[in-house]
Amino acid sequence: MSFAASVLTLYPEMFPGPLAHSLAGRALSEGLWTLETVHIRAFATDRHRTVDDTPAGGGAGMVLRADIVAAALDSVADGRPILAMTPRGRPLTQARVRTLAAGPGAVILCGRFEGFDERLFEARGVEEVSIGDYVLSGGETAALVLLDACIRLIPGVMGAASSGDEESFESGLLEYPHYTRPVTWEGRTIPEVLRSGDHAKIAAWRKAQAESDTRSRRPDLWERHEGARVQSPSGAQRRSKDEER
Amino acid sequence: MSFAASVLTLYPEMFPGPLAHSLAGRALSEGLWTLETVHIRAFATDRHRTVDDTPAGGGAGMVLRADIVAAALDSVADGRPILAMTPRGRPLTQARVRTLAAGPGAVILCGRFEGFDERLFEARGVEEVSIGDYVLSGGETAALVLLDACIRLIPGVMGAASSGDEESFESGLLEYPHYTRPVTWEGRTIPEVLRSGDHAKIAAWRKAQAESDTRSRRPDLWERHEGARVQSPSGAQRRSKDEER
Repeated sequence: MSFAASVLTLYPEMFPGPLAHSLAGRALSEGLWTLETVHIRAFATDRHRTVDDTPAGGGAGMVLRADIVAAALDSVADGRPILAMTPRGRPLTQARVRTLAAGPGAVILCGRFEGFDERLFEARGVEEVSIGDYVLSGGETAALVLLDACIRLIPGVMGAASSGDEESFESGLLEYPHYTRPVTWEGRTIPEVLRSGDHAKIAAWRKAQAESDTRSRRPDLWERHEGARVQSPSGAQRRSKDEER
Repeated sequence: MSFAASVLTLYPEMFPGPLAHSLAGRALSEGLWTLETVHIRAFATDRHRTVDDTPAGGGAGMVLRADIVAAALDSVADGRPILAMTPRGRPLTQARVRTLAAGPGAVILCGRFEGFDERLFEARGVEEVSIGDYVLSGGETAALVLLDACIRLIPGVMGAASSGDEESFESGLLEYPHYTRPVTWEGRTIPEVLRSGDHAKIAAWRKAQAESDTRSRRPDLWERHEGARVQSPSGAQRRSKDEER
C-alpha cells in the first residue's frame, strides 16, 4: 500500500512542485506515494466562488470559511490523519514524521490569508501542525516540507544503507559533523581520528561531537535528552516513542 | 533595491517552484525580489562532474565536497548573508526572517546526501539554519520555506493593511484564533464577544486567548515570553531585537 497524500489548497498548481524531482519525484513515478490536490475554491457555493470572509470582531485580512473548507475535507476524508499547516500548531517532530510515514498517508490543509475558522479544527478532528516559529504566505511550502520529510521514510524510497538511524533528532541529538576528501583544503585538515581507521575511536569521537554540538547549539534539545536519560537508561529511545501520537 | 536570492543546489529545476505563484510569484514578476539558481555540479572539476565523496571515518551516504561547494559559493558571494539549510543549524525565527527580509538578500546553500563537509562553514562564514527538528531529503524545500517567509515581508509585497504586526511570534506569542461567517455552523457559534462590537473587549479577549493558547500549546514559547517580561516592561520587543543577528 502506498502513502496517499491529499492536499487541500487554493493553489493546486504549487504541487508537486519540488517533489516532482529527485528522491520524491522518483518515488512518485514509481507509485510509492500518490498525490491528489483538491481545490478549496471548487467547494464555494456562490457565483463568485468565495471561500473567505472578514474576521469576526474586526481586523485585517480574511478568514477561510469553516463550511467551505469542511465540504472540501469531507470530499476526501477516509480515516487518514487530517493535518492543517499553521503557526498555531504543534511543532512537527521527526517522531511524528516517522509515524505519519508508516501510516496510510495524510490529508493536508493549506491555509492562506489570516487562516481558518477555528471551529473547523474541532468539528473535523484536525491536527494543527507547525513546521517552525516563523510565518509563511500560506501552508503550501509547509505542506511540501512535511511531505518531503515523510516520503523519504516510506519503505523503498531510500536505499537500505541510509535508513536514517544516525540522523539528527533520531537519538534526540544533532548529528555529528561530516568531512570528506580532500584531506587538506585551504589549510584545514580532516580531524585525525577520522583518518585512523580505528572504528571504536571514530564512533566515540562522533558521539562526543554530537553531544557537544547539541549542548552548545541546541541547549533545549540537550535538556530534553538529559531529562530522558535520567529517567531511564534507554531513555533516548523511549522518549522518541513517547513523542509519537 | 530588491531582495536578491541566489540558491546553490543540485536541483535548480525545483526553483522557483511554488514561489512562481500567488504572492511570491507576483512579487517576482514585479521585480520586488530576484532569484538566481547556481548548479553546484557546474563547479565539479572531473569528467564525471563529481560533487561528493565518501564520509571520512566511514559510514553510509556521501558528503558534499568543501572545495567544489566553495567554488560555487565564491562565484556569487558579494557580502549578502550566506545560509546553509541543515538540521544542525540554528532554528529559524521570525526575528531572523525580518532581518533577512530588510537586507540585500541571501545566498542559500541546499545540501543533499549526508550534507556538507564541515570545513566549508568556517572557511566561508556560512550561517547554518534549521527550519525545524525533522530531516528532509535535501535543503531545497527548506530554502523555499525560508524564501517564502522573507518575501512576504519585503516592502510592497503585502498590502499595508496586513503588515503582520499581530501575527504569531511577532509578540512572542501564538496568534489568537479566527472566526468568520456563518455565525452558527454545525451548531457551533462564533464567541459572543466577537459579535459585540465592543473593540476594547474584543482586544482584551484576543490577548487573553493568545496568552492561554501559548501557555497550553507552547509552554516553551510562554516561558521565554514571561522571562522577557520579568526583565523589562517592554521585554517582548527587546527580546525579539536581541534574537536578530
